[in-house]
Amino acid sequence: MTSRAGFTLDELAKALGATLEGDPRRVVTGVAPLHSAGPDQVSFLTHARYTDAAKASRAGAFVAGAQAAGLPAPVLRVREPQQALVDLLNLFHPPPTLVPGVHRTAVVAADAQVDATASVGALAVVEAGASLAARVRVGPLVYIGAGVVIGEDCVVGAHAALLAGVRLGRRVLVHPGAVLGADGFGFAFDGAQHRKIPQTGGVIIEDDVEIGANTTIDRATFGDTIVRRGTKIDNLVQIGHNVEIGEHSILVSQVGVSGSSRLGRGVVLAGQVGVADHVTIGDGALVGAQGGVPSDLPAGGKFLGTPARPMLEAKRIMAAETRLPELLRRVRALERALEALTGRPLEGEARGDE
Amino acid sequence: MTSRAGFTLDELAKALGATLEGDPRRVVTGVAPLHSAGPDQVSFLTHARYTDAAKASRAGAFVAGAQAAGLPAPVLRVREPQQALVDLLNLFHPPPTLVPGVHRTAVVAADAQVDATASVGALAVVEAGASLAARVRVGPLVYIGAGVVIGEDCVVGAHAALLAGVRLGRRVLVHPGAVLGADGFGFAFDGAQHRKIPQTGGVIIEDDVEIGANTTIDRATFGDTIVRRGTKIDNLVQIGHNVEIGEHSILVSQVGVSGSSRLGRGVVLAGQVGVADHVTIGDGALVGAQGGVPSDLPAGGKFLGTPARPMLEAKRIMAAETRLPELLRRVRALERALEALTGRPLEGEARGDE
Amino acid sequence: MTSRAGFTLDELAKALGATLEGDPRRVVTGVAPLHSAGPDQVSFLTHARYTDAAKASRAGAFVAGAQAAGLPAPVLRVREPQQALVDLLNLFHPPPTLVPGVHRTAVVAADAQVDATASVGALAVVEAGASLAARVRVGPLVYIGAGVVIGEDCVVGAHAALLAGVRLGRRVLVHPGAVLGADGFGFAFDGAQHRKIPQTGGVIIEDDVEIGANTTIDRATFGDTIVRRGTKIDNLVQIGHNVEIGEHSILVSQVGVSGSSRLGRGVVLAGQVGVADHVTIGDGALVGAQGGVPSDLPAGGKFLGTPARPMLEAKRIMAAETRLPELLRRVRALERALEALTGRPLEGEARGDE
Repeated sequence: MTSRAGFTLDELAKALGATLEGDPRRVVTGVAPLHSAGPDQVSFLTHARYTDAAKASRAGAFVAGAQAAGLPAPVLRVREPQQALVDLLNLFHPPPTLVPGVHRTAVVAADAQVDATASVGALAVVEAGASLAARVRVGPLVYIGAGVVIGEDCVVGAHAALLAGVRLGRRVLVHPGAVLGADGFGFAFDGAQHRKIPQTGGVIIEDDVEIGANTTIDRATFGDTIVRRGTKIDNLVQIGHNVEIGEHSILVSQVGVSGSSRLGRGVVLAGQVGVADHVTIGDGALVGAQGGVPSDLPAGGKFLGTPARPMLEAKRIMAAETRLPELLRRVRALERALEALTGRPLEGEARGDE
Repeated sequence: MTSRAGFTLDELAKALGATLEGDPRRVVTGVAPLHSAGPDQVSFLTHARYTDAAKASRAGAFVAGAQAAGLPAPVLRVREPQQALVDLLNLFHPPPTLVPGVHRTAVVAADAQVDATASVGALAVVEAGASLAARVRVGPLVYIGAGVVIGEDCVVGAHAALLAGVRLGRRVLVHPGAVLGADGFGFAFDGAQHRKIPQTGGVIIEDDVEIGANTTIDRATFGDTIVRRGTKIDNLVQIGHNVEIGEHSILVSQVGVSGSSRLGRGVVLAGQVGVADHVTIGDGALVGAQGGVPSDLPAGGKFLGTPARPMLEAKRIMAAETRLPELLRRVRALERALEALTGRPLEGEARGDE
Repeated sequence: MTSRAGFTLDELAKALGATLEGDPRRVVTGVAPLHSAGPDQVSFLTHARYTDAAKASRAGAFVAGAQAAGLPAPVLRVREPQQALVDLLNLFHPPPTLVPGVHRTAVVAADAQVDATASVGALAVVEAGASLAARVRVGPLVYIGAGVVIGEDCVVGAHAALLAGVRLGRRVLVHPGAVLGADGFGFAFDGAQHRKIPQTGGVIIEDDVEIGANTTIDRATFGDTIVRRGTKIDNLVQIGHNVEIGEHSILVSQVGVSGSSRLGRGVVLAGQVGVADHVTIGDGALVGAQGGVPSDLPAGGKFLGTPARPMLEAKRIMAAETRLPELLRRVRALERALEALTGRPLEGEARGDE
């Protein structure tokens, strides 16, 4: 994406708070991983297991931790290489310059409040009473519903739709195609048909949340569906009505969380996990990929499988499953041996037939 | 969303067909659940298990069934509280007033037929030969393909795409980002590459169907993919080509139904269920969350797991799985005990080694 | 969709390289499956199991292989009926005529390069530096980011978004709502919050790839996420950052492939399969529906289940699971019988209690 022309290693050392071992005037023009970096690029060693790759790298400089030794180019020594990598990437790839203003083809209601420093892209639609705070970037072809509130420094990608009743905090990042505030899925069967229960609530997204492409977060029946600050949600995730997700949680792609469930702070749901409705998941709990969560999970645990069980137990079960066909044979052999020994059949009630 | 200013309890009793116990002139201005309702709001008691919450509620009035007693405010007594709740919400949250007409920025083909009472939102595109019946609402940024037919009172949300060959009945609700009529997934491998099988059919959506945000329903190879009347489909659901879904079925979020499968009337597929291709599911069958349906399921049953089994059997298996590691140890102990007893090893063929 | 008026059987025989048995002047006006074809339509017999249906069909002619006998109408005899069906459908349903040019309502950057033979639909947005080659069709309401490169004969459906850094080869088909080039899901936890790792790479889609509706393919952190030529991807699929998918692979709907995983050539992932990050799947491997792939899979094998196991083994385990509750009872019966025989309890360590 956008990238700056280059930095001297001295400039980088100052920006990263790093100790430089090597020529301060050397210039690097980009960041690249060990295997592909060339002499004009700075690379990074975030884990000792990549030491051999680092020694073989053609990179012009390295960001590395205290232990790394024997690297073939200048080293920017830091305490936390992965955090320094984030800083480094932000230096080389600053966000695109914001050009404030409403594109001439956007359709913005007369009474929508668009801050003078905000931008609204081509062919976006902003409905009556919506409010865009300072430095908000609304992409092209975006739909912002009536009365939607968007806090400072939010970015809303192309084709995203924020329907009436949605409020974003600050620095929220909504990727393309995400739909926030569609009706929750609620019906009352009257004996002949499913009658729609009007979904009258909204959606609250707190500060620093990221929402993936084509993800859907439904409005509440009453009150609000809530995603608390710092939580990161991947692509194609479904968040049902009245769900509440705690701070700094991680929901990987294709996760589904059913209505009225509550996730604590720092929860991690790996890819394709499903959570039933009205379930509570405690702070810091982790559910492995494809897990199914039919009922509450305590804080801090790691879980796997459908139904989700403590991870070690689930792995023992999975290992035992591998031996299940063998186990059937062994039990049959035991039955035969015992019958031979006693000269009579085992009690009938429990006998299987193979 | 939109809401009316307020109603007297007398007005509500008449509208709901309820018997009022309390002051008919009392005014309520909104509907809220028991825990959050204030004195200006009417709340509801849809199940006896919420009786304590109702007694502690600050609501100004309650909708409740015949049994509820001891409530701390006037009661609108009804036979079916959940149905009355739907009526109540519709009273307070009527659909937004329809302002007929085509937005000046919409791009509507000269020969498209848009009823005078229909509305087409900002920056929507309606192609040649499309037909929008009375009171249809096409949202902003929607795409309506050539020849698409949309029946009376349908609502199509922002960014939805109805491609050529799609026909909607009446009162169909399509949420934002849904894609109806994309090509089915069909290829013929010629030994070197997958050749695309042209998908020449359409999609028929009958009356009163609801289709969730970012859901995809593919066109048929020949003929039509069909969703029959009254069926409700949640977000991020995939319906493959030539699928037929019976009346009044429920497909929860992230369900996938593969090509040419047929679901009966009143089928319920819980979240993330997958149905293989060319499978038939009988009327009224229910498949629990994350179930996988590789082959036909009979009418009326409840099923769970992958492969989907009768629910009680599946739950017994899941319970037994928990004991599988223990079972391995027990069988090993039996083998040892029997060997000790007989003084010789068990017949070799079935022995496992741990 | 679009279709031609009709062909004589003689014309069809020539176009398909078929041997005609029957009246060469007979005219057919469409293609239909055996059960619905009428006398004006040509039908097809692609498998011997449909022979009875063919004999009962009212079709005006049949495309069939060498073995088919006793058909009630003229036969276009071919070596590969399924390949001939593709040819036949392409004859009757040619792609819509391309009308070159940029729609007056599209917003195209001054320095974007749009070939004179390309078309850009209504209300599409094409950003600076983007390049559309000959005969490219960009649909209505599409977003094409800065510098995106689209090769000859690509088709991009309504509402699709190709963000900066995306490059398409030739004849790529992107269905509506697909998002290519959204940020990969990468964060570095700093002890207090998840810091976003800037995603600086791109997406490369090679020739003849098809990408389903509302599918998401993320940009790489560094370098490129790559889908190699001929691969077909269904709807609602998630491809994470830095994934590489080999040639002529098939990814069915709702599949998720996590970051940095590599699929070989000719891999098949059935519906709802999930692949963990940094996993390698060998050429030609197949994973059955809903499978979960936590670690590498060798080339050529067929796999099923979570965790994915060789298909025969997985099916044996699934069959054995059905007998698990019975097995628990049988082991308990063995324990009782052995205790009765020896007159003392089994060694305690392994005993379960029921």
